[in-house]
Amino acid sequence: MSTSPRNAFYAQSGGVTAVINASAAGVIETAAAHRDHIGKVYAGRNGIIGALTEDLIDTSQEPPAAIAALRYTPSGAFGSCRYKLKGLEQSRAQYERLMEVFRAHDIGYFFYNGGNDSADTCLKVSQMAEKLGYPLRAIHVPKTVDNDLPITDNCPGFGSVAKYVATSMREAAFDVASMAKTSTKTFVLEVMGRHAGWITAAVGMADDADTPIPLLLLFPEIAFDEARFLALVEQKTKTFGYCCIGVSEGLLDAQGNLMAEAGTKDAFGHAQLGGIGPRIAAIVKDNLKYKYHWAVADYLQRAARHLASRTDVEQSYAVGKAAVEMAVAGRNAVMPAITRVSDDPYEWKITEAPLDQVANVEKMLPRDFISPDGYGITDKARTYLRPLMEGEDPPPFKHGLPQYQRLRNVAVPRKLATDFAI
Amino acid sequence: MSTSPRNAFYAQSGGVTAVINASAAGVIETAAAHRDHIGKVYAGRNGIIGALTEDLIDTSQEPPAAIAALRYTPSGAFGSCRYKLKGLEQSRAQYERLMEVFRAHDIGYFFYNGGNDSADTCLKVSQMAEKLGYPLRAIHVPKTVDNDLPITDNCPGFGSVAKYVATSMREAAFDVASMAKTSTKTFVLEVMGRHAGWITAAVGMADDADTPIPLLLLFPEIAFDEARFLALVEQKTKTFGYCCIGVSEGLLDAQGNLMAEAGTKDAFGHAQLGGIGPRIAAIVKDNLKYKYHWAVADYLQRAARHLASRTDVEQSYAVGKAAVEMAVAGRNAVMPAITRVSDDPYEWKITEAPLDQVANVEKMLPRDFISPDGYGITDKARTYLRPLMEGEDPPPFKHGLPQYQRLRNVAVPRKLATDFAI
Repeated sequence: MSTSPRNAFYAQSGGVTAVINASAAGVIETAAAHRDHIGKVYAGRNGIIGALTEDLIDTSQEPPAAIAALRYTPSGAFGSCRYKLKGLEQSRAQYERLMEVFRAHDIGYFFYNGGNDSADTCLKVSQMAEKLGYPLRAIHVPKTVDNDLPITDNCPGFGSVAKYVATSMREAAFDVASMAKTSTKTFVLEVMGRHAGWITAAVGMADDADTPIPLLLLFPEIAFDEARFLALVEQKTKTFGYCCIGVSEGLLDAQGNLMAEAGTKDAFGHAQLGGIGPRIAAIVKDNLKYKYHWAVADYLQRAARHLASRTDVEQSYAVGKAAVEMAVAGRNAVMPAITRVSDDPYEWKITEAPLDQVANVEKMLPRDFISPDGYGITDKARTYLRPLMEGEDPPPFKHGLPQYQRLRNVAVPRKLATDFAI
Repeated sequence: MSTSPRNAFYAQSGGVTAVINASAAGVIETAAAHRDHIGKVYAGRNGIIGALTEDLIDTSQEPPAAIAALRYTPSGAFGSCRYKLKGLEQSRAQYERLMEVFRAHDIGYFFYNGGNDSADTCLKVSQMAEKLGYPLRAIHVPKTVDNDLPITDNCPGFGSVAKYVATSMREAAFDVASMAKTSTKTFVLEVMGRHAGWITAAVGMADDADTPIPLLLLFPEIAFDEARFLALVEQKTKTFGYCCIGVSEGLLDAQGNLMAEAGTKDAFGHAQLGGIGPRIAAIVKDNLKYKYHWAVADYLQRAARHLASRTDVEQSYAVGKAAVEMAVAGRNAVMPAITRVSDDPYEWKITEAPLDQVANVEKMLPRDFISPDGYGITDKARTYLRPLMEGEDPPPFKHGLPQYQRLRNVAVPRKLATDFAI
C-alpha cells in the first residue's frame, strides 16, 4: 500500500475476562509488525468512552515487555465500560463525535473487543463512517465468557471460565464427599451465564468417567421444577451420600421469571443477578434437611488467569492478531471467528465473519448439549467443551502470587477543544 | 526394638483441606519405611467414626502410586467427620470402644490428623490408653485452614488457602478496576476463619508494593463499625475509583454478635456461617449507591489444590512423616510442630509439641498483625505470611482438568461381633 500509515483505535467493552488482554497484545504486537499500514495504536481509556471524550492512551509509550505481559494479565488493561451506543439515528451525536475524534487523530482502523452489544456498535461505527465518507476499517474482536456470539465456534474468554468452574466444582466435590458422613451433603456452586447455559454446561465437565461426581445442573434454558429437582437431590444423596449442584445465575422459574432477580439493571438494561446459589441451597435445606454449603464465584471465575486455558489464551491472542491482519488486507465490518476443523485432535483456524450476521445475535446452548432429563450434559457437549479447556498457561509468580502487568496508560495529547458529555 | 510390629490407625478429622492428604501420604509412606515397628496402616472410614464402628480401611491394599498421588489430591481420602469426643467421663463409652477396636486390630499407633478439637481427642485417647494399661502411642498431626493451633508456627492447610484468597482478590481487583468507570465499584470477597482472622489477613497480601490495590479488611477481631467502614469505602472509591473488601465469615457487630449467624450449628456446637459477603455489599449499596459484586469462595478456598502453596504441601507431608518418626522413637501425646528458623530466606524445621499444651488452645491473630486503623495488615503480618504462600505445586492435568486420586478404600475384615451406635 503506498498511502501513509494511519493510526488504529482499540477498545475493550463490557465485562472483562481472564484473557481479553491477550487479544490486546495480539492487536498491538501485530500492528507493530505492519508499520507500513498502521502508525500508532491508541486505546480508549474505559472503552468507547475514551473515544467519545477524546481520552486516548498511547500504547507506544509502553515498553514492549509490558505489552507482551498483557498475554498473562487478566482484566481490561485500558479499562472497559458498560456503555451501549444505540441505533444510528438514536445515538447520532455519539457516532458523529467518534468520527470527529477519529479524524482529529487520523484513526483509520477501529478494533472493538467485546460481545454481542459491541459487535453491533462496531457494525454501526463502520456504517456511520461510510455514510460520512470517512475512510475506516472496523473490525470486531470477539470476547465474552458467555460464549454466545454466533458463527465463531467459541468465544475467547469462555474456555478459561469453563476450566475454572469445572476445576472448582471437582475440587469442592472431593471436599463434600469427605464431609458428607456427618456434615455437608449438598454443595451449590452458582456460575455466570445470563441467558445461555454454556458455563453451566462446563460445570458438568467436573464429572467424567475418570472422576464420577453426583452432580445436577440447573440451566437457564430449563425452567426450575422444584419437586423434580428435590427428588433428584434426594436420590443422589441416598445413593452417593452427597450431591453437588451447579446453578446458572440466569435460572428461570416456570413463569419465566429470573429466580435471582436482584431488582437492579446494568447500563445495557440487563438485570444484575446474584444470589440464586444460596436460594437453591436453602430450598434443599428446607425440604430435605441436608446440611449445605454454597459458593458464588462471581468475578473470581472470569478473572482467574492463574487457571486459564492455554487454548483460550492462544485463541484470544490469535483473534487480536487476525483482526489487524484483516484490517491491513482491507477488510471492514468483519470479525475474526474461530472455526473448528476437528474435535480430536483438536484443530482450529481463524475465518472471517461478516458483522451484520454477528451483531445482536445470541448463540444459545443447543438442546442436544443438555441431557434428556435436563440436569446434565451429553457426550456432544463434552466433545465440544473438552478442547476449549485444554492446556495450562500459568502466569509468572513471585512470593507465591501471580504477577500481573499494570500499564502506564499515558494519554495522547488532546487535539479537540470540545468536550463531550457521556 | 525387638518387639514385633504393631499396626497403626490414622484418621482425618474436621474440615478437610487441599493438603491434608499430603499428610496422609507422609504417614503411610513413612510407616512403610519402618516395617520393623509398624505393620499395616489402617485408616478410619470417615475419621474417628470408622474406629468406633470398626470400619477400618486397609491402606496396604492401595497401589503405592495411589498413596503417592494423595500428595496432590485435595480433601480427605478416607473421609473425615465432625464428631467430637468429649471428656473422658462424659464420653467414657466411646473411649473404651476405641480401645476395644484397637486391641482387636493390634493398633499400637494412633495418628489423628485435625485441628484444635482433634488435638484434644488425641490427648484423651492417649490418657485413656494409659489408664487402661493399653500400650498406645498417640500422635496428633496438625491440620487446619484456620491456622489457629498453638506452638506450631503455622498449620498445614493454611498456606494454600492464603495463596488462594490473595490470588483471587488480586485477580478480582484487576477486574473491578477495569469496570469501575461505568459499572462495579465495590467488590466483596467473603472468606473463612471462624474466630481468628488469619485468612482475612492473607487477603491483604493481594495488595503489595508491586500491585497496590484499594483494599479494606474486615477482621473477626475488630467489631464492625458501619459508619467508619462506609467512610473508608467512600474515601477509597473517590481516590481510586473502586474499593475491594475482604470480610471474614466470623465478623462481629459491636455487641459481639456474629453478623452472619445462620441460626444453625455444627456437631461441635459452632455456628454455621455464610452470607456476610452479600450483606456487606448491600450495606455499601444502600448507603453509597455504588454498584457492587460479591463472591463467597466457601469450600473452593480450602479445596483449591490446583493453586496450593508448595511450602504448605511440603510441610503437610513433613508433619505426617514426623508423626510416624516420633511414634517409632517412642514418643506419645505429642504433635509435630513447624518451627520457623528464619523469615528470609525462609527456613523451618519440625519440632515436638506436647499435646496438653495444644489441645483446645486457639492461637489468635496478633493485634500487631492488624494495622492500627483495623482495616489492613502490617509489615509484621506480611513477613509472617509471605513464605507460607510461596511456591507452586500443581497437580497433573488431563483434558484441561486436574486429575485427583480416589482410593479403593478396601475394608479391613471385622473382628468384633459388637456394633456401636454413634
